[in-house]
Amino acid sequence: GECSQRCYNIFVLETVCVAWFSLEFLLRFIQTQSKWTFLRTPLNLIDVLAILPYYITLIVDSFSVGGKQTGSGNNYLEKVGLVLRVLRALRIFYVMRLARHSLGLQTLGLTVRRCTREFGLLLLFLCVAMALFSPLVFLAESELGAKQEFTSIPGSYWWAVISMTTVGYGDMVPRSIPGQVVALSSILSGILLMAFPVTSIFHTFSRSYIELKEEQNRASRHKPGSQDSTKSQNSEDSQETDSYHGITEASATSLQRRKFTAAQRAADIRAMKT
Amino acid sequence: GECSQRCYNIFVLETVCVAWFSLEFLLRFIQTQSKWTFLRTPLNLIDVLAILPYYITLIVDSFSVGGKQTGSGNNYLEKVGLVLRVLRALRIFYVMRLARHSLGLQTLGLTVRRCTREFGLLLLFLCVAMALFSPLVFLAESELGAKQEFTSIPGSYWWAVISMTTVGYGDMVPRSIPGQVVALSSILSGILLMAFPVTSIFHTFSRSYIELKEEQNRASRHKPGSQDSTKSQNSEDSQETDSYHGITEASATSLQRRKFTAAQRAADIRAMKT
Amino acid sequence: GECSQRCYNIFVLETVCVAWFSLEFLLRFIQTQSKWTFLRTPLNLIDVLAILPYYITLIVDSFSVGGKQTGSGNNYLEKVGLVLRVLRALRIFYVMRLARHSLGLQTLGLTVRRCTREFGLLLLFLCVAMALFSPLVFLAESELGAKQEFTSIPGSYWWAVISMTTVGYGDMVPRSIPGQVVALSSILSGILLMAFPVTSIFHTFSRSYIELKEEQNRASRHKPGSQDSTKSQNSEDSQETDSYHGITEASATSLQRRKFTAAQRAADIRAMKT
Amino acid sequence: GECSQRCYNIFVLETVCVAWFSLEFLLRFIQTQSKWTFLRTPLNLIDVLAILPYYITLIVDSFSVGGKQTGSGNNYLEKVGLVLRVLRALRIFYVMRLARHSLGLQTLGLTVRRCTREFGLLLLFLCVAMALFSPLVFLAESELGAKQEFTSIPGSYWWAVISMTTVGYGDMVPRSIPGQVVALSSILSGILLMAFPVTSIFHTFSRSYIELKEEQNRASRHKPGSQDSTKSQNSEDSQETDSYHGITEASATSLQRRKFTAAQRAADIRAMKT
Repeated sequence: GECSQRCYNIFVLETVCVAWFSLEFLLRFIQTQSKWTFLRTPLNLIDVLAILPYYITLIVDSFSVGGKQTGSGNNYLEKVGLVLRVLRALRIFYVMRLARHSLGLQTLGLTVRRCTREFGLLLLFLCVAMALFSPLVFLAESELGAKQEFTSIPGSYWWAVISMTTVGYGDMVPRSIPGQVVALSSILSGILLMAFPVTSIFHTFSRSYIELKEEQNRASRHKPGSQDSTKSQNSEDSQETDSYHGITEASATSLQRRKFTAAQRAADIRAMKT
Repeated sequence: GECSQRCYNIFVLETVCVAWFSLEFLLRFIQTQSKWTFLRTPLNLIDVLAILPYYITLIVDSFSVGGKQTGSGNNYLEKVGLVLRVLRALRIFYVMRLARHSLGLQTLGLTVRRCTREFGLLLLFLCVAMALFSPLVFLAESELGAKQEFTSIPGSYWWAVISMTTVGYGDMVPRSIPGQVVALSSILSGILLMAFPVTSIFHTFSRSYIELKEEQNRASRHKPGSQDSTKSQNSEDSQETDSYHGITEASATSLQRRKFTAAQRAADIRAMKT
Repeated sequence: GECSQRCYNIFVLETVCVAWFSLEFLLRFIQTQSKWTFLRTPLNLIDVLAILPYYITLIVDSFSVGGKQTGSGNNYLEKVGLVLRVLRALRIFYVMRLARHSLGLQTLGLTVRRCTREFGLLLLFLCVAMALFSPLVFLAESELGAKQEFTSIPGSYWWAVISMTTVGYGDMVPRSIPGQVVALSSILSGILLMAFPVTSIFHTFSRSYIELKEEQNRASRHKPGSQDSTKSQNSEDSQETDSYHGITEASATSLQRRKFTAAQRAADIRAMKT
Repeated sequence: GECSQRCYNIFVLETVCVAWFSLEFLLRFIQTQSKWTFLRTPLNLIDVLAILPYYITLIVDSFSVGGKQTGSGNNYLEKVGLVLRVLRALRIFYVMRLARHSLGLQTLGLTVRRCTREFGLLLLFLCVAMALFSPLVFLAESELGAKQEFTSIPGSYWWAVISMTTVGYGDMVPRSIPGQVVALSSILSGILLMAFPVTSIFHTFSRSYIELKEEQNRASRHKPGSQDSTKSQNSEDSQETDSYHGITEASATSLQRRKFTAAQRAADIRAMKT
């Protein structure tokens, strides 16, 4: 009743989507042998995270309608409303369902799983640098600065993060000379610290990409029906895989592909030059 | 009549340029065998895009003068004016015509054609990260923030883009602690996500550059008349190609060049040291 | 008396921590053969830097209480207070004690020791570029700019640092055309200058990481009791070391590891695809 | 007379420095065989650029004192004053004289001389992208934006530069949706375009560094007197050269050095672990 026409249409669309996703998820869940392994797979976890908020919202909504009639109080209703809004924001996990069909997102997931140590290192370095520079800049600014932008040490943490990642919003700027020297050293150390794990994470990404690509190629070769479509895509695929091989070591199989794409490359260049 | 002297001079200059470009384009179009392949070549497409706006502006201008006399209404004229101004902005494609004579811009074009998948990956990653972080930061800020800078979720998309690319204009800054934690994670993920495809795009660029260079060298060797000028340029060319060979694998032909340039390098260093 | 309950709890916690650290440090100091080498080791220096501020604060506090009673003057007390606050900020060196147990922080320390020349180069480049661009931008802005944001040449140094590291707070922005041309060239040179030593520092980091890793593996192999736990960790370790080997040269020992992890990788991918 | 004591001291100091530099320069100029080659060497050009402003300032000052007495007019004096201040800013070329003694600055100079084509490419890409995006963002903002921050197309060039280099001062921010879409594409293309030549410039830098290093080692070996000091520095030198060899190809000579430094590295790690 309180919902406008457009809001109602979105609700219907969402219900249809969630119903379809739930049906597909249930059928796959029934078919699998080991239920526990199925639930621990990251892609299925994302499915659950994308579907669940809808049902929880429905349940909480019906309860809160009942709650409103009995008038149980404002404070409780506000908390429920906040939970509802967080759940609505989590519906964005629909997007991550695309990972099932996109090689790039799968590679991203595999990279995240393999590089947990590098991510930890990055966070550890960032935290240590934050813990070192924040009190120093706060001390310099609160003692010597004219404008009091640095009101507390936790506030300085925010400044340190924004400076070390070279974002630089400009909402907090050191004005005293010692504060600016601390800022210079924190920015330089930030640039260097960020550079360390980023490069090694990238190499894991490119290696994962080649592996998934070859896995996929092998899988599609075993299916005899899809062989025709594979062949037409092949020249494009091998070229892409090739661009990553240039970075890591060249395997023996890529040498044959290279001969195949050499002709195509010359054609590319010729087409540019007409 | 309504145009000042300087504006009139620019118009004459542009007319001469466009007339020359049109003539050149027509002659090439008449000479080619397959008209369809000619029109699909990127460099010719850029030519068309650079010439067409002038003619369309001319036609629309003459119509709008006629339309003004009959007084067909303000709203229609405003739309026509907007189209005209967009077309005038597109005349900047004149610059892209330089690509025909600059090896660097040709390499850029070839890289863009070869890396469509990487560009798509970059955009996909950016969109997924934007879709994940924007609702979260909007929720945190609209619930807890004092200053209401985050007025809507689409507005938060803009903030997410500016933060993840580490530009940081500072027009929207999260003020609450949960908002700042979301900001930290979005900035870190932005830096990592941008790093993935950028490096692989670069490798395609450097490979394309070497290929185009060798293609050009081979082409100039076949013309006997231009051989003298080629020889004088050779030492400079091979040195540059060399700088890219250091990155990718060293081909057999570059070994001979390296011996040739070794003497020159020593001369460079000696000249520095006098 | 003047301290609240929460402040008192923190004081007790810190006293216990420092007591434990001091005891551990003393026992290790007594046990070592060469006292001088022990004190010159970076990790032990960090320990001293983390423990000392507590004792100095205690001493200065007791003196300042005595000083207050005799009323020796305001100016002196303020200076003592500033020293105290700087010492409190230095207590953050507790965090660096983690280096003893984290391979990442040890690698960081080793990289800093090995790359002193690169760090010097980075600072030298930055200083030269600052010294070149600051007077130019100050001249352009003070002569031609409407808003007087650039009040002095030392103030321009701060602007040059913030622009060359691409942080861009926005507190000082050149408004005149010559000032903006100087800004463009300083930003471009900043990006290029920062890129030079950063990459070579990174390579030293990744090489140091592999060396420390192999050192640790060798150390754990010699202890027969810890062999079981090593074995279970081994697959994880070798995979990580592997990710760095892809960057630098592949040693002969890593080839055997690669075979071992190939099976695990296929399992990873299979787990993703269920 | 109008100069304070401190200003006078600086003037005396500068006179002594410039006198010394001039004497040294003249002696070297008299000693060289070919005067023309001597003047064309970059390091000597920097010397001239550092010394000349002092003399020109002296001459102009004496003329302007004469001019003041005859009262030749305000406008002329202002121009002379501007020239004087630009010359004073150029005295900063004293700093570049350090290049004669610093290997890092020499490498920088050699890199700049070798990479002129890459620098041109970088500027060409930047200009093309600026010329494409500036009119589009100006059109979008002047038609649709509420706040008129984008007052002219040349003003938009400044915005494009600041956005594409990810500095982001925040003095000009697009507010309309089409303007923000243009901003997103210009930022992304800026990040990609900057990445292309930067990496290849870096490789030239690291190669130049190794060459200059080996040149220097060879030069010091020929001098029999300085051999002792070379030997003590050798372990440090070879380690540094080594860190660059890991990036480019490993030459045969570095293999012997590697064995030499392997022992030292183990010592480094042992010192860390005590």
